[in-house]
Amino acid sequence: MTEVIVLNGGSSSGKSGIARCLQAVLPDPWLALGTDTLVDAMPAALQASDAGIEFAPDGEVIVGPEFRTLEAAWIEGVAAMARAGARVIVDEVFLGGAASQQRWQRALRDLRVLWVGVRCDAAVAAGREVARGDRTVGMAASQADLAHQGVVYDLQVDTTRTESMECARTIAAHIS
Amino acid sequence: MTEVIVLNGGSSSGKSGIARCLQAVLPDPWLALGTDTLVDAMPAALQASDAGIEFAPDGEVIVGPEFRTLEAAWIEGVAAMARAGARVIVDEVFLGGAASQQRWQRALRDLRVLWVGVRCDAAVAAGREVARGDRTVGMAASQADLAHQGVVYDLQVDTTRTESMECARTIAAHIS
Amino acid sequence: MTEVIVLNGGSSSGKSGIARCLQAVLPDPWLALGTDTLVDAMPAALQASDAGIEFAPDGEVIVGPEFRTLEAAWIEGVAAMARAGARVIVDEVFLGGAASQQRWQRALRDLRVLWVGVRCDAAVAAGREVARGDRTVGMAASQADLAHQGVVYDLQVDTTRTESMECARTIAAHIS
Amino acid sequence: MTEVIVLNGGSSSGKSGIARCLQAVLPDPWLALGTDTLVDAMPAALQASDAGIEFAPDGEVIVGPEFRTLEAAWIEGVAAMARAGARVIVDEVFLGGAASQQRWQRALRDLRVLWVGVRCDAAVAAGREVARGDRTVGMAASQADLAHQGVVYDLQVDTTRTESMECARTIAAHIS
Repeated sequence: MTEVIVLNGGSSSGKSGIARCLQAVLPDPWLALGTDTLVDAMPAALQASDAGIEFAPDGEVIVGPEFRTLEAAWIEGVAAMARAGARVIVDEVFLGGAASQQRWQRALRDLRVLWVGVRCDAAVAAGREVARGDRTVGMAASQADLAHQGVVYDLQVDTTRTESMECARTIAAHIS
Repeated sequence: MTEVIVLNGGSSSGKSGIARCLQAVLPDPWLALGTDTLVDAMPAALQASDAGIEFAPDGEVIVGPEFRTLEAAWIEGVAAMARAGARVIVDEVFLGGAASQQRWQRALRDLRVLWVGVRCDAAVAAGREVARGDRTVGMAASQADLAHQGVVYDLQVDTTRTESMECARTIAAHIS
Repeated sequence: MTEVIVLNGGSSSGKSGIARCLQAVLPDPWLALGTDTLVDAMPAALQASDAGIEFAPDGEVIVGPEFRTLEAAWIEGVAAMARAGARVIVDEVFLGGAASQQRWQRALRDLRVLWVGVRCDAAVAAGREVARGDRTVGMAASQADLAHQGVVYDLQVDTTRTESMECARTIAAHIS
Repeated sequence: MTEVIVLNGGSSSGKSGIARCLQAVLPDPWLALGTDTLVDAMPAALQASDAGIEFAPDGEVIVGPEFRTLEAAWIEGVAAMARAGARVIVDEVFLGGAASQQRWQRALRDLRVLWVGVRCDAAVAAGREVARGDRTVGMAASQADLAHQGVVYDLQVDTTRTESMECARTIAAHIS
């Protein structure tokens, strides 16, 4: 039985919407946790410093050493939740591509994980970023390919022309 | 020269996203105001009473007499902003169809208005409502057709298979 | 009968909380509108450009010519709402002190207005700014005195040691 | 060295504000996680059903069996984050008083924890709930005493007449 679903994709690719649709269509209750949850839990100072996370004017995201330390502990904790019986949807941006995936693979090694790539055409994601109005413009385009470099998936969905709900149904069909 | 753009459509049809894209693509600065702005400005008590606004379990929205009074004054005020030189995008749900449009037509009678219908297939809008996660489920389906009954448009866009940004560009091409 | 209540004070002085308490204690329904409503209605580009609004690293707020144009129309519109029968609470920061008040006085000249100063000790407001976690740090301290320079009030409240609800009751007692 | 700070108190007692001030005054980076984080991570359906969490009209919060299951795993995960090296501030409402504390005590048994009671006079908390405008009215009054029944603390603070920042400094002085 699948214990963790990892959704990986760039900003504004539609991961959070798919996560909420998955929570609605899956028969059991699943927790949805992600990068946004972690960033919200961090001290405000880490969100604007060299030690933490920085949003460059072109949308590039730079992550510092103190962010990495808290993130490593966060990943361990999310894995522990799944081990303790919560089924968890992880909504992530693998800014470091394969290296980021390895951090999660190590923590989740004894759990049954479904790795899902959430693709979206860069220009379409950039338009949705403007439509949302709550993100630094440029992140969507900068992360659209970057987040997938060297990452290995069980399944990929593409939100460019497919609704979140339909992507969620496709993913749900792969949950055993 | 167009002074007001009225976007009308059901909940989760994509009006707010189009409004933000319009603000990004139009060369002049436009204010974006709508039903959500008005509801946020109302007393909390009016958002859960017979005199104000009520969200029925099936997503139906019922609006009471005190809501109507404040709304009438709000409409006059938005018209006055346009007369005073602000170009305004109005993001609305005409729950009363033609009757709702007439309220706005009266207030905007001396202004150049572009009336835009924002359509979205009911099932698709319902899926997006789940994906957003911040709306009473059922509103999208309940309003998808209701909001357009008897309403007259200069232009209609359909977000079912067209991105907000593309809809915004189509609308922008009609601004004189 | 009072038609408009203007609450003026620096960021994190407690104006919005007082506005919500006023809406709860006043017998009639009042609309609450303010600087935050206007800023949210502006194009994203105006929130980070020389023509719009800029948040300096020390919390200073710099407002450009295009912001001023939209603000002038906004003020006219809020006055028109009050003239059309909505009772309105305006939640403002008079960054320009007396000059800002004059802009509102001109627009509201034929309306019965209660001018209320919302004071808060700068150090206390700065602490509350950190506790809120959603504001640029430094605004509270920078605006605590600035917002009141040369402004004339019917009534002043001080949130340093008085709760929002108690301030609202004091103000409500002055509504005729 | 303190590894976890548990802040327990009723809704609108000021826990989240104290948590953000603690993050600002403590020299190391601390994660702030709490009931709100958990509730946001749950499926929407669990937030309005007998199996999940329910907000009664009088502000009482009723928690169902599926909520309890996910909560138990969440607590294990937060403990694992602290064990993995993140220092964590937990912002909680012990609706079950001593029984709720025991759930956390068991999970955190091998960690150095500072247990902090966050008190606030019920009437004052109820006023702040109205001022915030984003909570079900009645929760503050209903939880003000309930949350502390049988709970044992290392330290208590009272926000009735003390600012969040000052409470945070008092707590920080107890961190070893």
